[in-house]
Amino acid sequence: MRLDLNADVGESFGAFKLGQDALLMPIITSANVACGFHAGDPGVMRETVALARQHGVAVGVHPAFPDLVGFGRREIRATEREVEDLVVYQIGALAAVAATQSLRLQHVKPHGALYNMAVRDAALASAIARATAAVDPALILFGLPGSELIAAGQRAGLRTAREGFADRAYQPDGTLAPRHLAGAVIDDPDVVVARAVSMARDRAVTAIDGSLIALEIETICVHGDTPGAAQLASRVRDALTDAGVTILPAGAPAGIS
Amino acid sequence: MRLDLNADVGESFGAFKLGQDALLMPIITSANVACGFHAGDPGVMRETVALARQHGVAVGVHPAFPDLVGFGRREIRATEREVEDLVVYQIGALAAVAATQSLRLQHVKPHGALYNMAVRDAALASAIARATAAVDPALILFGLPGSELIAAGQRAGLRTAREGFADRAYQPDGTLAPRHLAGAVIDDPDVVVARAVSMARDRAVTAIDGSLIALEIETICVHGDTPGAAQLASRVRDALTDAGVTILPAGAPAGIS
Amino acid sequence: MRLDLNADVGESFGAFKLGQDALLMPIITSANVACGFHAGDPGVMRETVALARQHGVAVGVHPAFPDLVGFGRREIRATEREVEDLVVYQIGALAAVAATQSLRLQHVKPHGALYNMAVRDAALASAIARATAAVDPALILFGLPGSELIAAGQRAGLRTAREGFADRAYQPDGTLAPRHLAGAVIDDPDVVVARAVSMARDRAVTAIDGSLIALEIETICVHGDTPGAAQLASRVRDALTDAGVTILPAGAPAGIS
Amino acid sequence: MRLDLNADVGESFGAFKLGQDALLMPIITSANVACGFHAGDPGVMRETVALARQHGVAVGVHPAFPDLVGFGRREIRATEREVEDLVVYQIGALAAVAATQSLRLQHVKPHGALYNMAVRDAALASAIARATAAVDPALILFGLPGSELIAAGQRAGLRTAREGFADRAYQPDGTLAPRHLAGAVIDDPDVVVARAVSMARDRAVTAIDGSLIALEIETICVHGDTPGAAQLASRVRDALTDAGVTILPAGAPAGIS
Repeated sequence: MRLDLNADVGESFGAFKLGQDALLMPIITSANVACGFHAGDPGVMRETVALARQHGVAVGVHPAFPDLVGFGRREIRATEREVEDLVVYQIGALAAVAATQSLRLQHVKPHGALYNMAVRDAALASAIARATAAVDPALILFGLPGSELIAAGQRAGLRTAREGFADRAYQPDGTLAPRHLAGAVIDDPDVVVARAVSMARDRAVTAIDGSLIALEIETICVHGDTPGAAQLASRVRDALTDAGVTILPAGAPAGIS
Repeated sequence: MRLDLNADVGESFGAFKLGQDALLMPIITSANVACGFHAGDPGVMRETVALARQHGVAVGVHPAFPDLVGFGRREIRATEREVEDLVVYQIGALAAVAATQSLRLQHVKPHGALYNMAVRDAALASAIARATAAVDPALILFGLPGSELIAAGQRAGLRTAREGFADRAYQPDGTLAPRHLAGAVIDDPDVVVARAVSMARDRAVTAIDGSLIALEIETICVHGDTPGAAQLASRVRDALTDAGVTILPAGAPAGIS
Repeated sequence: MRLDLNADVGESFGAFKLGQDALLMPIITSANVACGFHAGDPGVMRETVALARQHGVAVGVHPAFPDLVGFGRREIRATEREVEDLVVYQIGALAAVAATQSLRLQHVKPHGALYNMAVRDAALASAIARATAAVDPALILFGLPGSELIAAGQRAGLRTAREGFADRAYQPDGTLAPRHLAGAVIDDPDVVVARAVSMARDRAVTAIDGSLIALEIETICVHGDTPGAAQLASRVRDALTDAGVTILPAGAPAGIS
Repeated sequence: MRLDLNADVGESFGAFKLGQDALLMPIITSANVACGFHAGDPGVMRETVALARQHGVAVGVHPAFPDLVGFGRREIRATEREVEDLVVYQIGALAAVAATQSLRLQHVKPHGALYNMAVRDAALASAIARATAAVDPALILFGLPGSELIAAGQRAGLRTAREGFADRAYQPDGTLAPRHLAGAVIDDPDVVVARAVSMARDRAVTAIDGSLIALEIETICVHGDTPGAAQLASRVRDALTDAGVTILPAGAPAGIS
């Protein structure tokens, strides 16, 4: 059993500080780095990559719609071509930052609205996968299990990593319960930790209706945007390790531990 | 005798169309592509690289200050670190666009205020050279002969290409006459063509005071932003060819013709 | 019979020039001025207001989503609150520019995706109307006849002006035929002119299925973004005048001619 | 003796939270509200104006260069015309937000690099003053005592308010000691409080060389960007009140207390 722990990082922008990257980096194995469209600026990107490097965390791209004021959380009706182009651009920007620190990128995980739309929008998902494969076919595409994004990644010949959320409720069909539903976000740290272990060890999680559903994941997302978030991430990691799960970057070779 | 012909291209942005790229590309050998900070967007970048590729034109980065409304022409008192970071970012963005079309970048030519400040500001010039070398030491750095930028490029171990302007007047010390001076911009096409030939063949040009000054260049800049500009560029190219100058991208191997 | 002729103007941005404002201004009676979110910058706004003033054209706000690269044509899933706030902001910015030239604003006409979404989205339409009324209840709200925007304007106590498009096909229900339909955009200048006269004089227009439908409008939109557009606008104006229609700004008092 | 207490507020942007506005507003009498160019967005502006209104704090504009990533702290070599236009635009945007809450603006205080450049650059200072007077001649212009900005405001017929900084060292000529000098920023809360009282009561302050210099001010700036800043601001206010200074907005009529 092995699992990757990923987190969204590098979401400061100029004088605006966001997140707890310094606390998260020692815990996670994959860093999703903002690339200037929803957050992040060239200097923040450099600092974030350096921090990831220092902790041996694999670096990935967190591409987003161009919407700084909306933090990339708002759906924009862009064309497939526009989405493909903006993903290429953001991968490249981060790849260069990584290159200056002798690092290669590991993965691409779309941010916010782009991620959510790619669950069901096959054309958008294909655009993201196409962009990723065109820049570097060795990149791993992160997405929800069963999403159009994972399917598009596979069609494009990319490795994929299916992502679980220990602090979010699932519907019986395996999709995330929308945030506006009561119970959609799980606040109890003990429950979050237990769900992470269940996902990793049992390949299953209890859905919002109480049924147990299968959930195959290669990476689990931890958050750093609330007080205590890094501490919770640390507890998740420790519980996984105690359960016999090896915590490794998604792209680490099979034999490594 | 060989010379590179470069032009600033890809300076449209979304619905805003600028320049005459389709007319210039058949004439030039190196394209300086805007990267979204002063002009250009991810889609324009893709189209511009495709057009360059179609015409066998070498692709380079045209990094600028983040100043869309000012078209990158206004000096911004950024730190060295900020300049280094924004050059890395822009090189990367274009490199990815080029990679999706199986192209590698040839060069970096700073745009507007960044270019002009790098003539005399050694720290800024070093930041640009450092960024370029850190992303890809094979990139060629374009700059004014005698500028701090060329010196910084050489210190950073980069190949450099010194650039001449056939339509700009020179001061006796080899620097460009400021635009506000009478006669700083040369409008007469015959004079422009003759000066280009003089630069290439005689390695000299007549300065604004009438004296003949030495000018060593490897590339010459042609413009596309005025009516008739592409036609003038074509005349320059033809005159150079007639004078026995081989027109080749700055990065073409020595033996090629 | 009286009618207002409006056009979108001030859509240049920095070095990027767009439109034919100087040709349109002598023809139109209401100018929809871009306010920096999809086009326009503070300097372009000043110049555009000055040009409108010089020609006695009434000045209005053309608020848009914050999407320069998409020219405000892409739907953004913003909240009602966000839409209300961005409309207030853009009205204010233009109002100040107008104040420096001793002008008051006449109207608000949403741009692009904001305009189109406000046809059917009642909540969005209400947000626009609320913003407009909150800043200045004397402003006139422009929108499609039968749209939620016009309804929201009336509920908010605003004067409204229903807008017709002489170069667009209508569906039998009075809505515009989507652009992707064959025949949705009418290219024949003679037909465009005839339809403008029909709208003004007969309060009716032939729909895309050949049926004659009623269409009550107070303003008609002319375009300036294609070659010959200003000439066509001029022909429309002349034909309307010949048909006995008085061309006046939407906000001109009833007795004026 | 009366004095205004001003602070920079509304400097959050979208998801990026900055400052301690809720703690500062009960203390200050004038709020300098960011207008979207260096910080602030239309929603943040609305919330900030509402908070000011709730606490009876006078609302002013804090216009800046368009430089979100640089937080408006970097000098940009804009033309006078560009500066005038961007100040007009930002005043208007905030005026509309204020109008929706039945408030009028009290003042204009340039932000960051714009403020600092206006100390010595007479042309830039005139552009700011011209913009302010053109939009609303009742606005009060805030600036450093002896600055070109105050002089330009007076020439433009504006009321002005000279501003003191209790936590900054002064040079013998009455200008602020540059931040890079040792001792330029005063950290000791007791010293800060004492200097505020000295400025208000004695119209004098001890300069960095130990000499006592005259300093005439109508407003004093307190900060909210460091931990403990609001508490310090509160102490400054209390000490001023204890010293018999009446704390009133700069624009409050003379007879009010």
